[in-house]
Amino acid sequence: MKKHNFSAGPCVLPKSVLDKCSKSILEFNKLGLSLIEISHRSKDFIEVMEKARLLTKELLKIPKGYSILFLQGGASLEFLMVPANLLKHKAAYLKTGTWANKAINEAELYGEVNIVGDSSDTNYSYIPKGYHIPKDIDYFHCTSNNTIFGTQIHEFPEVPSLMVCDMSSDIFSREINIDRFDLIYAGAQKNMGPAGTTLVIVKDEILGKTNRKIPTMLDYQTHIKKESMFNTPPVFAVYASMLTLEWLKNKGGIKEIEKINRLKSETLYTEIDRNSLFNGISNIEDRSIMNVTFDTTRKDINIMFDQLCDKAGIYGIKGHRSVGGYRASIYNALSIDSVNHLVEIMQDLEIKMK
Amino acid sequence: MKKHNFSAGPCVLPKSVLDKCSKSILEFNKLGLSLIEISHRSKDFIEVMEKARLLTKELLKIPKGYSILFLQGGASLEFLMVPANLLKHKAAYLKTGTWANKAINEAELYGEVNIVGDSSDTNYSYIPKGYHIPKDIDYFHCTSNNTIFGTQIHEFPEVPSLMVCDMSSDIFSREINIDRFDLIYAGAQKNMGPAGTTLVIVKDEILGKTNRKIPTMLDYQTHIKKESMFNTPPVFAVYASMLTLEWLKNKGGIKEIEKINRLKSETLYTEIDRNSLFNGISNIEDRSIMNVTFDTTRKDINIMFDQLCDKAGIYGIKGHRSVGGYRASIYNALSIDSVNHLVEIMQDLEIKMK
Repeated sequence: MKKHNFSAGPCVLPKSVLDKCSKSILEFNKLGLSLIEISHRSKDFIEVMEKARLLTKELLKIPKGYSILFLQGGASLEFLMVPANLLKHKAAYLKTGTWANKAINEAELYGEVNIVGDSSDTNYSYIPKGYHIPKDIDYFHCTSNNTIFGTQIHEFPEVPSLMVCDMSSDIFSREINIDRFDLIYAGAQKNMGPAGTTLVIVKDEILGKTNRKIPTMLDYQTHIKKESMFNTPPVFAVYASMLTLEWLKNKGGIKEIEKINRLKSETLYTEIDRNSLFNGISNIEDRSIMNVTFDTTRKDINIMFDQLCDKAGIYGIKGHRSVGGYRASIYNALSIDSVNHLVEIMQDLEIKMK
Repeated sequence: MKKHNFSAGPCVLPKSVLDKCSKSILEFNKLGLSLIEISHRSKDFIEVMEKARLLTKELLKIPKGYSILFLQGGASLEFLMVPANLLKHKAAYLKTGTWANKAINEAELYGEVNIVGDSSDTNYSYIPKGYHIPKDIDYFHCTSNNTIFGTQIHEFPEVPSLMVCDMSSDIFSREINIDRFDLIYAGAQKNMGPAGTTLVIVKDEILGKTNRKIPTMLDYQTHIKKESMFNTPPVFAVYASMLTLEWLKNKGGIKEIEKINRLKSETLYTEIDRNSLFNGISNIEDRSIMNVTFDTTRKDINIMFDQLCDKAGIYGIKGHRSVGGYRASIYNALSIDSVNHLVEIMQDLEIKMK
C-alpha cells in the first residue's frame, strides 16, 4: 500500500517523477548507460541542467539579470555563502525560527547582524510585523516559511536595501514577485526534488562588491561563470528536480498549484479549528500553507490518534521535537486525497471519543 | 546494447547496484514509500548511513580514532575545508596536476603554501620524487591519483607532520595503510558511487587546533558530532555508495579488486606498448591503474579509431582537453571484458593499417 506521505522533507514526490527516475537509473536516453554513469560534461546531462534552469525561469517568471544555480550543501551552506558574498558591514535578519537562527550564526562571522524582528518569545509561533529595517544595511534576510513552526510570511516587507530569502520549504508553492528579491535560495528536498541539490536565484549585479577574497567554491560568481558545472554537479538530484519542475509545469504551473495548496491547507486548518480534539499551534494569520502544525487538546488520545494514522497509512506527521504535537507537511506533490484522508481520521477520532 | 563505459567520472557502476537503486526509487524496504521520499531521520535511512560508514571502515581497515563522513560539495569543497581546519602557518603541497593546483589555490587563502614537488614542466606526466618536506609544516597534501594525466603515487613519502590525501580517483582500488594518513577525502563519483557525496576519513585528534573560527558547515567537527547528519544528507548518493561498497565486499574486498585492477591496467598498458599505433602519455613508472592515458602515433588514424570505438560501444575514452589523446578510465566496476574489448579494437586497427 502506497503511504500518505506528510514528511517535512525529504518528502513526497510525484509518482511520474519516481517512475522516470527509476527507469533512467537503468538506462537514460537510450544511451546504453545509466543516468548516473554518464559524464556530467556529456550532451545528455548538459541538456538536463539547461532544462532545469529554463523550467525554473519559466515557472517563477524570473526576469533578466538573475542567474539560476544548482549547488550542493543545502540551505546550511547558503547561510554562510550569503554573508561571504554580500556582507560588508551590517545585515538585518528576521529571527523566526531554527533555520533563521542558523543563518544568523554564520552571518555573525562576517559582520554585524541586526535582529530586526524576533518571535522567540513564543517559540516562534508568529511572524514579527511592523519592525524597522535600518537604511545602512547591506541586506535584509528572512525565511519565507518556517518548516518546523508552521509559520509563513504572507507579506514581505519593504526593504531599503537588498532582500535575501531562504525559501527552502515554500518555493514553487505560491506566486511570488521575483523582482522584490535579490537572492533566493532553497534546498531541493521539499517542493523541488530529492535531497542533494540547492537552488540559488541571484541578481548578478549585487555580486563582487565586498572586497573580500571569497574561497572559490563559496563564491557565487564561480558557479555563475561555469553554469553550475564548476565541479561535478549532483547529477541525480538535478535530474529528479528537473522532472519535478516539468511535472509542475504540466500541472498548470505555480498559479494552479497555489490554488490546490490553498485548498489543501484550508481543508486541514478548518478541521483543526472545528474539531474539539485538536488545536492549531501557530498564530492564525501567519499559518503556513506548507507545514500545518497542530496538537491534541487531550493528551490521552495521542496514542489512539497515532495508531489510527498508522493503520491508515499516514506517514511523517510527528511534530518536530522543538515544538511537539503534530505537523502535516502538505507540499506540492501531496494530493488533496491525502489531506482528506487525514481529515477523516481526525473526524473518526472525534466520533470515537464522544 | 549496454556500453563499455570508460568515462572518467561519473562513471561505470555495478549492474546490481543500478538494479537495486532503480527498485528503491519505486519502493524502499517495503515501506510503501520511495527511498528519496523518506525522512533522513527515519530508522530506515539512518541504517543506510550507518552501513555506509561500517563498510568503509571494514573495507579500508580503518583503525580507531578516525571518523568517517559523507559530505557534499565534492573534492572541490575539501580543497577549502582542509586548510580551514588544519592550516595554522604553513603547509606543503605536491603539485601534480589540475586538482592539486586547485587545492593549492584554496590553501593560499589560509596560510603559506610550500610547493615541495612540481611536475608542471612536462604537463604533469610524472610524479615528483626525492623532494624535501620541511619539518615546520602543519601538513603535507598530495593527490594519490591524477585522473586527467594518468599518473599515480605508488609510494607515499615519509612525512614529518600530518599527511592529507585527495584519493578521489583511486580510493577503494588498492590496499593502503590508513595509519599513514591523517585525512583522506574522495568525491564518490569514481569507485564509490554516483556524484553527489564526498567521503572524508579524518583522525579526530588533529582537529580543533587552529584557533580559527570555522564556519559551521566547513568545520569537520560539526559533521563528526552529528554523524554526517548536521543537515539533510544527499540521501540517494549515500545509498548508492553504500550499495557499491557492499558489492565490493561481496567481490572479496580491496585485496581482490586490486588484483583485477592490476590485471586490467597491465592488459591495456601492454597493448599500448606493443601496438605500433599507440603510445602511453604518462611516465611508465608512475602509470595509474585507474586512468590510462595514451595517444596514437599517427594523427591520420584518429577518426578511424574513434569510429571503431563508437561502433563497438566503447564510451568515454576521449582524453581531457588539457592532455589530448585518449584516456581509458578503468575503475572498479569496469570489467576485464571491457578492457579486452578495447584491446581487440586497437589490434584490429593495427591489422587494418598494415
